[in-house]
Amino acid sequence: MLNSWVFRLALVLGAVSAITPNNPIRTVIAFAVIGYVVTISIIPRLGASFIKIGLKGKDMSKPPPVSEIPETMGLVAALTYMFLMFGLIPFIFFKYLVSFGSMSDDAVVASNYIEQYLAVANNRLFPHNKLAEFLSAVLCLQSTVILGFLDDLFDIRWRHKFFIPAVTSLPLLIVYYVDFSVTSVVIPRFVSDFPGGYFLINVINWISKYGNHLVTLVTGLSFRTLQTDYVVPDSTPKLLDLGIFYYGYMSAVSIFAPNSINILAGINGLEVGQSLVLAVIFLINDFCYLSSEKISQAAHDSHLLSVIFIVPFVGVSLALLQYNWFPARVFVGDTYCYFSGMVFASVGILGHFSKTLLIFLLPQIINFIYSVPQLFNIVPCPRHRLPKFDVKDGLMYPSYGELKSKKGISNALLSFLELFKLVKLERDKSGAITRFSNLTIINLLLVWFGPLREDHLCTLILGIQFVIGVSMLTVRHTVGPWLFGYDNLSWGVK
Amino acid sequence: MLNSWVFRLALVLGAVSAITPNNPIRTVIAFAVIGYVVTISIIPRLGASFIKIGLKGKDMSKPPPVSEIPETMGLVAALTYMFLMFGLIPFIFFKYLVSFGSMSDDAVVASNYIEQYLAVANNRLFPHNKLAEFLSAVLCLQSTVILGFLDDLFDIRWRHKFFIPAVTSLPLLIVYYVDFSVTSVVIPRFVSDFPGGYFLINVINWISKYGNHLVTLVTGLSFRTLQTDYVVPDSTPKLLDLGIFYYGYMSAVSIFAPNSINILAGINGLEVGQSLVLAVIFLINDFCYLSSEKISQAAHDSHLLSVIFIVPFVGVSLALLQYNWFPARVFVGDTYCYFSGMVFASVGILGHFSKTLLIFLLPQIINFIYSVPQLFNIVPCPRHRLPKFDVKDGLMYPSYGELKSKKGISNALLSFLELFKLVKLERDKSGAITRFSNLTIINLLLVWFGPLREDHLCTLILGIQFVIGVSMLTVRHTVGPWLFGYDNLSWGVK
Repeated sequence: MLNSWVFRLALVLGAVSAITPNNPIRTVIAFAVIGYVVTISIIPRLGASFIKIGLKGKDMSKPPPVSEIPETMGLVAALTYMFLMFGLIPFIFFKYLVSFGSMSDDAVVASNYIEQYLAVANNRLFPHNKLAEFLSAVLCLQSTVILGFLDDLFDIRWRHKFFIPAVTSLPLLIVYYVDFSVTSVVIPRFVSDFPGGYFLINVINWISKYGNHLVTLVTGLSFRTLQTDYVVPDSTPKLLDLGIFYYGYMSAVSIFAPNSINILAGINGLEVGQSLVLAVIFLINDFCYLSSEKISQAAHDSHLLSVIFIVPFVGVSLALLQYNWFPARVFVGDTYCYFSGMVFASVGILGHFSKTLLIFLLPQIINFIYSVPQLFNIVPCPRHRLPKFDVKDGLMYPSYGELKSKKGISNALLSFLELFKLVKLERDKSGAITRFSNLTIINLLLVWFGPLREDHLCTLILGIQFVIGVSMLTVRHTVGPWLFGYDNLSWGVK
Repeated sequence: MLNSWVFRLALVLGAVSAITPNNPIRTVIAFAVIGYVVTISIIPRLGASFIKIGLKGKDMSKPPPVSEIPETMGLVAALTYMFLMFGLIPFIFFKYLVSFGSMSDDAVVASNYIEQYLAVANNRLFPHNKLAEFLSAVLCLQSTVILGFLDDLFDIRWRHKFFIPAVTSLPLLIVYYVDFSVTSVVIPRFVSDFPGGYFLINVINWISKYGNHLVTLVTGLSFRTLQTDYVVPDSTPKLLDLGIFYYGYMSAVSIFAPNSINILAGINGLEVGQSLVLAVIFLINDFCYLSSEKISQAAHDSHLLSVIFIVPFVGVSLALLQYNWFPARVFVGDTYCYFSGMVFASVGILGHFSKTLLIFLLPQIINFIYSVPQLFNIVPCPRHRLPKFDVKDGLMYPSYGELKSKKGISNALLSFLELFKLVKLERDKSGAITRFSNLTIINLLLVWFGPLREDHLCTLILGIQFVIGVSMLTVRHTVGPWLFGYDNLSWGVK
């Protein structure tokens, strides 16, 4: 039914009729539907062209004969998304929006500008001055798509591509600097109450202040000095102005989010699937805020913006998932992983909830930490760490790295991990370790629950990710306020 | 000397030291120097990678052996430009810019925000609310780079790629709608004074008004209704509000500018060269405004924005030209042509001087009109219309199209053109036309002045373009005011 043109046309027409300029959430859902239909219609038409210019790959986890399928198809989803975001602008930002419903004459309309603008503000829609922030995020995403695509085309070296998101997040950080400039963070109560904590905070504060001055000296640009520049001992909440270091922190977030999605990858549907699970968790969090009456306008705006960025992303990603799910007919490419990670990073940065973003990325963080021994060559790292496909039963098995040297540190580390069943080891007759399951959570899950068929493995990972995400959501709104002595939306503390 | 790293480093350091946040023109020149050095340093390093993924071409106007050289190198210049534009943002837009020169304490600094902001406004720098417009132009250029690059990669069909700029100009038009919304044009005096002219204007006005209402009915979005909605017979200047048709017009401008540059192409250095000549003419026009004391703040802002966009463009283009000039070591690709055309289109649109833009594009317009008989197949059009290279003397000769049928219309047209020496015809013994020089101004110049060496031909075209441009500049500021009965900067009328 999804392949029927009549059905798709009906979907689009239904979506178009649901668009209204005064209701951003309804508009954004309509745009997501349009994005879904456009993406699902375009992808099959472009496969041959992508293969022709060399954007193709073989799926190593399928029984022979393995045919080549198009790679980097995430580009289609990403570009569709970009144009959706352009189209959204007039529906969510207003200046001279005037209702012509009554076809009133022009004098009446003219005198209504101000009233209309106030009505927009009262309805908690976006004021016009948020437009620059919105555009900077779109610009950041578009830069990410370009550099991600160049990575897929030119196969940029690993140590260079790791920093791609830092470069593409520049427009976001720069507009943040020009427009927003909030560089203070809330200090958890347990830090400031801890003996010496207050001293430590003031040291950081002093360093950041003179860091700012140094940058000012070199570039002539200065940093906004807030009233909260100094930590007032008895203020609640306690704020620390990080100054330029806050930009370093945001840059690190924007490097981490895309790369963490890019690392947890390699089986059909996983890149898109984990992005969709993340999107759902973000949306649950956003609607917790939006449905609350007691939140500030700033928090409302942050989370409405988050919804506006994420809902169309869900639309285009669902379409991509249909082609990328087991058995995959297309690969998504680094383009999609970077793009997807940057959607979450920019929403977190603009919404000033990048710490919440990081706890939602916990499964990716765990995977990264678990991979560190191999990524930094403490234990040997083979070229590919994907699970191994067995042609006989069609199931996935953990893949293994070979341990050739009898070096102390890798042996000790692996034996230590084995104690907690965090790795599967194979030993020779003398008891020395010869092989170990590669250190990715994909392999670990296969060690624990495998062998599994590729799609069941993917579903398992996504299920675990969802459970962790919802738990973190609960922790963030219950333990968080207790830890920080403050929350902009708290369930646990009155 | 240009290849010396020491010299390049000195250039960059000099540029960095010249950047000041309070002087946009000085900052922008410094950025242009940085862009020049970056582009000139990166291009030779990427050639091999471009050739490897198939972005390569043979220069047909060189003696054998012809080796393959990298294609689409304009991408490097365009991406460098994009990152320069990101970097410019904090230096030309201010909100909380505070001078730390005196290392004054925070209270003094805080109370100076407002004074500082006023100082910025008095210095005729950009107020912060122009940021959205700036970002929309950058977004439009970046979209153009993406789609232009996809065109180079996938070889999009001619009838599709013609409309690429219309799609990529969407962010510009949308932000123009949300932010700016001036859709009225000045009516030339000779039109409104003409018998029936006043009636005609009101008909157009009536159509555009109900066109607006129709769009409002469908999308719920409305168009700003200006006080100048109706033409007041005795007002000076006379304004006509085109409403939605103005967006159609801007879209047409953004289609025309990139495509017209893309059509006048094919010999070494011409694409970049004509862009640079255009840039110089734009800059002369801008400085005529900026050096005048009597212009309005709006005109000042428009032309300062134009300088800000064009000067860094000159920087990266000069670097590209060094590799693309005869004998070319790289090709620039459609990416560069689209990108370059869109720089001028977006500057013209945002600055509300798109009509001036069109007269500066006169050589390209002439080339387009002259090509129409072939583009629309009124006379036969061979696959390539590039001039023909003769291996023996190393010179360029006009290329010819074959006339097979004895169709009346093409014969008549070609004979008519021959009357004014606008084409060179070859006839058989019976006097029937067999071949004609292809209808591009490149070929026409070779008919008139040829044969020429490729670089002399390019210089000739650029020289003619420059002379026409400067003449148009003079006409625009002398005849224009007389025609329109009004000018925002006039030399001819007091």
